[in-house]
Amino acid sequence: MPADSYERLVAKLKRAHYLGTVAGLLGWDEQVNLPPDSADQRAEQLALLAELQHAAAADPEIGRLLIELENPVCHLLSDKLSGPADREVVVREARRDYDRVVKLPAEFVSEKARLSSAAYHAWADAKAKSDFTAFAPFLEKHLSLARQEAAYLGWGDRAYDYAIDKHDPGMTAAKLTELFTELKAGLVPLVRAIASSPVRAKEGIFKGFPVEAQREFLREVTGRLGFNYRRGRIDVSLHPFCEGAGADIRMTTRFDADNPLDSLFSSIHEAGHGLYEQGLPLAAQGTPLGQNAGMGVHESQSRLWENQVSRNRAFWRFFEPRFREKFPSQLAGVASDDLYLAVNEVAPTLIRVDSDEVHYNLHILLRFELERRLFAGELAVRDLPAAWNALSEELLGLVPPADKQGVLQDVHWSGGAFGYFPSYCLGNMIAAQLWFTVLKVQPDLETDFEKGDFSRLLGWLRTNIHEQGRRYETLELVRRVTGEELTPKYLLRYLQERYAPLYLK
Amino acid sequence: MPADSYERLVAKLKRAHYLGTVAGLLGWDEQVNLPPDSADQRAEQLALLAELQHAAAADPEIGRLLIELENPVCHLLSDKLSGPADREVVVREARRDYDRVVKLPAEFVSEKARLSSAAYHAWADAKAKSDFTAFAPFLEKHLSLARQEAAYLGWGDRAYDYAIDKHDPGMTAAKLTELFTELKAGLVPLVRAIASSPVRAKEGIFKGFPVEAQREFLREVTGRLGFNYRRGRIDVSLHPFCEGAGADIRMTTRFDADNPLDSLFSSIHEAGHGLYEQGLPLAAQGTPLGQNAGMGVHESQSRLWENQVSRNRAFWRFFEPRFREKFPSQLAGVASDDLYLAVNEVAPTLIRVDSDEVHYNLHILLRFELERRLFAGELAVRDLPAAWNALSEELLGLVPPADKQGVLQDVHWSGGAFGYFPSYCLGNMIAAQLWFTVLKVQPDLETDFEKGDFSRLLGWLRTNIHEQGRRYETLELVRRVTGEELTPKYLLRYLQERYAPLYLK
Repeated sequence: MPADSYERLVAKLKRAHYLGTVAGLLGWDEQVNLPPDSADQRAEQLALLAELQHAAAADPEIGRLLIELENPVCHLLSDKLSGPADREVVVREARRDYDRVVKLPAEFVSEKARLSSAAYHAWADAKAKSDFTAFAPFLEKHLSLARQEAAYLGWGDRAYDYAIDKHDPGMTAAKLTELFTELKAGLVPLVRAIASSPVRAKEGIFKGFPVEAQREFLREVTGRLGFNYRRGRIDVSLHPFCEGAGADIRMTTRFDADNPLDSLFSSIHEAGHGLYEQGLPLAAQGTPLGQNAGMGVHESQSRLWENQVSRNRAFWRFFEPRFREKFPSQLAGVASDDLYLAVNEVAPTLIRVDSDEVHYNLHILLRFELERRLFAGELAVRDLPAAWNALSEELLGLVPPADKQGVLQDVHWSGGAFGYFPSYCLGNMIAAQLWFTVLKVQPDLETDFEKGDFSRLLGWLRTNIHEQGRRYETLELVRRVTGEELTPKYLLRYLQERYAPLYLK
Repeated sequence: MPADSYERLVAKLKRAHYLGTVAGLLGWDEQVNLPPDSADQRAEQLALLAELQHAAAADPEIGRLLIELENPVCHLLSDKLSGPADREVVVREARRDYDRVVKLPAEFVSEKARLSSAAYHAWADAKAKSDFTAFAPFLEKHLSLARQEAAYLGWGDRAYDYAIDKHDPGMTAAKLTELFTELKAGLVPLVRAIASSPVRAKEGIFKGFPVEAQREFLREVTGRLGFNYRRGRIDVSLHPFCEGAGADIRMTTRFDADNPLDSLFSSIHEAGHGLYEQGLPLAAQGTPLGQNAGMGVHESQSRLWENQVSRNRAFWRFFEPRFREKFPSQLAGVASDDLYLAVNEVAPTLIRVDSDEVHYNLHILLRFELERRLFAGELAVRDLPAAWNALSEELLGLVPPADKQGVLQDVHWSGGAFGYFPSYCLGNMIAAQLWFTVLKVQPDLETDFEKGDFSRLLGWLRTNIHEQGRRYETLELVRRVTGEELTPKYLLRYLQERYAPLYLK
C-alpha cells in the first residue's frame, strides 16, 4: 500500500482506468469478433464493468485524497515556472473527472442511459422512415437532460458551454462562433470557386482491388507512418474505429474491392488516432498525464496524417510506385494525375461522413449553428428540419430530399452527444496550424515524405502534442506549441494551397 | 434489488461469474490477438480482474445468504423425490465454491500464485536443459502448499483426495486406484498385441493441404456435429483450447499443411468441449446449474466426439468424399483404407500430448501412480525421474532418453495442478460408457452418422449430461445416466472393437 497520498491517488485512478481499458477491449471485440447471438451476454458483461468502473471512479477515497492534495501547502512543492508540474496536473484533472462522476445522481445517470438506448432505436427507426416527428420527443428530452446535467455540474444555464467543454476542455460556444464565422467567410468562396471549376475527378477508375493486397498495402503505409504494430493491430469492422490505450491499440477498417482509397484513408485516419494514443507517456498510464487532451486535439492528429500528410504530392511520390506494384493490372489504365486527383476529389454531398475535407467543415458549421440555437432557445426542436434544410442550402448549395439525408443522418444526438460535432472542425483547424508550425522548423519535411520517412514529423508531434497528455487545455496547448492563438487562417491557407492548383488553374 | 434471499444469492453469484467470463475473454484474446509488446498491460488488466473476481466470490453477503438458505426449514420447500431440486443444488454448490474462496488466507493465495509463476519459468528452463534437479525444489514447495491447502479446507491429511475432488467432485484416490488397476489389466495386453501386429499406418501420405481449405473443412465438420457458430467461433493459437461460457464460446486450433488430421481432430476435440458449454442451461448462467460438472465429465464430452464419433467408420463414410472434394490432388494417391488407418494410427510415444487414444490412458496411469506415491510419502521428489522412467518402461515399453521427454514434459505440476491428470483418463472411461449407453437406446445411431446427422446423439447428451449442470457429482451422474457404476470395461470394449479389426486381423 503506497504511503504517500499522491501515490494512493494514482493507484486509485489506475483502477478506474484499467477497468475502462477492459470495457474498451470488450467493445472492440463486440465490433470485430462477437458471434451474432452472443450480444445479450456481452451486454451483461459491459453493464457489470460499467458499474465497477463507476464505483472505482467515484471511490470516496479519491475525494478525500483530492481535498488533501488540493491544500495550498502542497502547491508550494510544485514548480510553477515551466508550466504546471506533473502532480498539480494530475490533481487538477482528477478533480475535473471526479466531480463529473460524483456530482451526477445515480438516478440521473441511469435515466440518461435508458433514454439514450430508447432514443437510439427511435432514431434508427425514424431515419429509416425519414420521419423526424417520431424522433423529436427523444431529442427534446435529451436537451432537457443536458441542461439538467450542466446545472448539476455547476454550470448554471451555460449548458452548451458545458457540453462543449466535456469534449474540448476550456472551449466555449462564443469562442467557436468567432472561429467558425471567420472560417465560413473564407471557405464559402473557395467552395464556390471549386464548384464552378471544369476539373472533375474521374469516376469508376478503381475496380477489383483484392482485399488481401489492400490489407498488405495499408499495413505498409500505416507502418511507415509510424504505427507500432507490436503494440496494436488492425482488424475489420462495419465502421472503422480506433480503441484501446497504452500499449494495446486496436484499429479497424473495412474493405471494398472497388474503393481502395476509402479503406486506405480511413485506415490512415485511425492510425493518426492510434499514433496519438501510442505516443502518450506509457509511464503515466492511468493518470491524466497519460491521457489525451480532448476530442479536438485527438481529431487534429487523425486529420493531420490523413490530410496534410497523406493527400500530399510528396507522400504519393513515394507510395504511388508501391501502390502500382501491388495492383499492376488494376492501375494500368489510371494516369498518375488522375490518381492524385482521385485522392483529392472535391464534390459536395449531403452526407457528412461521405464528404471531402473541404466541404466537411461546412457540415460541422451547420450542426454547430443548430446546436447553438437549440441551447439558446432560439430554435424549437420541431423547427429543426426546416432550419437544417435552409442552412444546408446556404452552406452546401444542396437541400436534402428527405430527413434521412438531412437532420436524421447522424447518430450523435440520439445519445445526447451535444457539443461533439464542433471537435471535428476544431481538429481540422488545429491540424493545419500544427502543419504550418512544423514546416517552419522543418522546412524540408516533405523531402522526407518522398523517401517514405515520416519520423521527423512524428518525433515533433510526440514531443509537442503526444507527450503532453492532459497537461494543457485545448487553446493553451495550441498557443504553446504554435506560438499563436488558434485561428482558422491556417486551415484556409492549407485548403487553398492544396486545392487551388488542382481545381482553379 | 431482489427481495428474496435466494435471488440475492444468485445475483451475487452472477457477478463473480461474469467477471470470470471477462477474464476468460481477455485470456483468449491474449492467445489469439494480443500484439507482442502489449503483454504487461494485459497482465495489469488480468490482475485487477482477478482481484475483483475474488472480492465478488468472497463477498461476505454470500456467506450470510448461504447460512440463511442452508437452514433446514428452507429444505422443506424443495422437492426431494426426483433428485436434488434446483435451489438445493445451487446452495450446496455455492457453499462448496464459497468455502474454497474464503477458507484460504489471502497470503496463502498470493504465495501459491508467486510460486506458480516462478515454478513455471524454472520448469521451462529445466525442461530445455533436461535438468530435473533445478525444478525439484519448486515441486517440493508445491507439494507442501497442496498439503497446507487441503488442511485449510478441512480435508486433514487427505491432500491428494482434496486435489482430485477439486477437479472431479466426489472422486477419491482409492476409487481411481480401483478403476485404473482394472483398466491397466485389460489395456496392457491390447497394447502388446497391437505392438506386435505387422499393420502400420503409412507415413508421410499428407502433404500440402492449404490452410484455408482445412479451415473450411473443419468448420463444416464441427458445424455438422452441432457446434453453434452463432454463439461461438474458432480462431488460431499456438495450442488449441476452448474458452468462454454461456452464449459465447471461443475455440482455437492450429494449422500444419502437412498434418491436416492434427488440426481436424484437435478442432473436433475442442468442439466437444464447446458443445458441452453451449448445452449448459443458459437461463441458469452464473449459477452452478449453468456450470459444467467437472474436468472428467468435460473431457468425456471432448473425447466422445473426437474418438467414438469421429474415428468411427460411419463418420468417414459421410466425410471422406467431402474431404476428397476439398483436397482432390492431395488425396488422389491415398487409398480409403490408408486414410482410415491414419485416422486410427496406434504407435507408442514418450510424449503424452502426441499419443494415440489407446496409449494415452497409460500415460495417465503413470502420472496418477506417481502423484499418489508422492502424496502418500512413498516417493521422494528427488527419486521422481527414476520412478517415472521405470513406470514408462513397464507401461509403454519406452525409457525417456532425457527428462525433457519424461518427467519434465508436462506443464501441469509447475502450477501445482495435482489431481488434474486423472481427469483425462476418467473422461475416456466416461465417454466409452456413455457411448454404449446411447447405443442401447439408439442402436441405429451410426446410420445417422453415415448421413452426416449427429443431432440424435447431441440431443441425448444435451438431456442427459449438458442440461444437468453441476446437479450431480461425477460418479452419481454416470450412475444415473448409464444405470451402472463407472467401470473401465466399456473403454476396454470400445478400444478392442475399434482397434482389433484394424491391427489384429
